[in-house]
Formats: sequence, C-alpha cells, structure tokens
Amino acid sequence: MNRITLALAAAAALAGVVVCVVPSAGHAEGEAGALSGITLPEGYRDWRLISVAREEGELNDVRAILGNDAAIEAYRAGTLPFPDGAIIARIAWKFTPSEENNKIFGREQSWVAGDPPDWYLQFMVKDSKKYAATGGWGYAQFDKDGKPAPEAKMATCYPCHEPIKARDFLFTRYTP
Amino acid sequence: MNRITLALAAAAALAGVVVCVVPSAGHAEGEAGALSGITLPEGYRDWRLISVAREEGELNDVRAILGNDAAIEAYRAGTLPFPDGAIIARIAWKFTPSEENNKIFGREQSWVAGDPPDWYLQFMVKDSKKYAATGGWGYAQFDKDGKPAPEAKMATCYPCHEPIKARDFLFTRYTP
Repeated sequence: MNRITLALAAAAALAGVVVCVVPSAGHAEGEAGALSGITLPEGYRDWRLISVAREEGELNDVRAILGNDAAIEAYRAGTLPFPDGAIIARIAWKFTPSEENNKIFGREQSWVAGDPPDWYLQFMVKDSKKYAATGGWGYAQFDKDGKPAPEAKMATCYPCHEPIKARDFLFTRYTP
Repeated sequence: MNRITLALAAAAALAGVVVCVVPSAGHAEGEAGALSGITLPEGYRDWRLISVAREEGELNDVRAILGNDAAIEAYRAGTLPFPDGAIIARIAWKFTPSEENNKIFGREQSWVAGDPPDWYLQFMVKDSKKYAATGGWGYAQFDKDGKPAPEAKMATCYPCHEPIKARDFLFTRYTP
C-alpha cells in the first residue's frame, strides 16, 4: 500500500469498527466481490449491541456496532485475540436532523439515523488462518442493495486498523 | 403540569425514545422510586437494536434505542398500538471525541460513546390498563448505579411524548 492510498484511507476512515475507504458513488468499479469472499452474514441485524459512534466530516454518519455471540462474549470477557468465528457488524446511517422531534422540543437538538449511505454495512470476520495476512480479520462492505464493495477498496481496511493491533485491530470499545 | 414544567421538559427533551426532564446531579431528591414502580428490566442490554440517535445541547449525548422481542416485532410489523409487554430501552452515553481514533485518522472526526450521564437508562413499558393515564406507557429512568429518577421528574415524560400519539407515543423510528 502506497502512502497516497493510505492517506486516502485515513481521510475517509470509518471509526466504529471497520475502517475502509468509502466506495465512490455509483459503484463504477462493478460487481467485484468483497475481499476474502465474505457474504452478507445472515441475521446480523438481530445481533447484540457493542456500542454506537459518530463520524463527522465527509462521512457525516451515525452508526451502531453489533456483534455475533462470539464477538459479544469476547468483548464482555476481555478476550484477546478474538476467537475464530467472531463477527463484527457496523451499520451506518446518514446523520439526519429530526424535524419532527425538534418541532416538539422547540429547539434544534435532535439527530437521528437517516438513509443508508454507500458504506451502509461493514463486517470484520475473524478467521486467524484464512485472514492471517490481515491480522486474522477479513473485511467486507455492502451497500443498501447488498452489493459488495470492490476488492480494491477493501484492501485499504487493514492498513488503517493495523495501529490498533493491541486491541486485536478493533477500534470500538464495548460500552455497557 | 404547569407551563414552566412543560417548558423545562421540552428544553431538556431526550429524543430517541423517552423524553423526560434530566435529573439534577447528585439526586438530591433522594431515593424515590420510578413512576409506576418500574424496576430495571432484566437483560435489557441484550435486546435488539431499534435505532441510534444523538441529542445536542445540554444533553450532548449519543444513544442506542433497544427493544425487547415484543417491541422489535411490533416495530418491524408496523403494529400500532404496541402490544402490552413491549418495552423500549434507551441507553445514553456522553458524546466523546475519540483521541485514539483521530490520531490514527489524522483528523478530528471520530466521536464515540463515553461515560454514562445521569440520564443513562430510560424505559417505556407498555401496559394499556396500568398506564392508561399516560397513553398506555409507563416511564422510568435509572442512573449508572441503578438508582431510579424521582417520580416528580418522571411525570414530565408523558407530556412531551403526547404530540407523537399517532405513532403510539414513540419518537424513535426503526432503522433497518
């Protein structure tokens, strides 16, 4: 990864859990599958909550970070590294003022989760052998139509997560 | 409820789901139980996600809105009014800049869930008979030590939720 690409990754960095360059609008690069062949994990929307976060700047989103049972148990127990089979899901929504709330409250203070952005869904899948080259985690991103981000974009994930190696490459901390 | 109290309620309004006046620091009003005798619902932290939100202003928090099975099913099915037994949980955390994320990303853009504020946990419990006087919902709030907010404070919840009667008094919309 060259410096320019890494800088782009940093600039577009998604906190929460998964940090990748945001795909360009329209998915001009076509239907390339997500890096490492990860498909949309079944039932992820029913997973338990790890924490919430907000990214300002160009991303301008609000997000929830969910985990499957293996991930939640590892977070709560403080297990490091995470076990194979753990999956982290990061759902982002456009940071949207709630006009109906603000009207009732009488002031501009309420922001809610709006439409899904192109970087709607991101996942980190732990498989220490399969993804040994990227810290044991595979990375994937899907838009609202379930379309995976091009592999070239997903290759930018790991370099941004690498500095957080001491926490098994996970930016998000569990918040009770 | 007089106008000043209602105005205070509006000013301190918590979007997300439950809107109540924020208790004063230190809980000077003592150990009064939550209105309607609601106790901290067991296992709420394992409930599924309804949505996320942020309140600016004095609250300055980021929050997750969770629901028990009855609540999630009602949201997804569009059931109105919600069935008895549905419970909504709203967890708020102080809106906190992530210095570790920002350092890695090279810009100030990342905000995470920080320490719990005094209005950490709020619940709406549906019981159309027991809480008939407040739209069928009972309201409760707990701080990080599990201490319920004084009843006088909880009495401010319903007047702020009343304008959203068409959605069974629930501010939060489910976001897939």
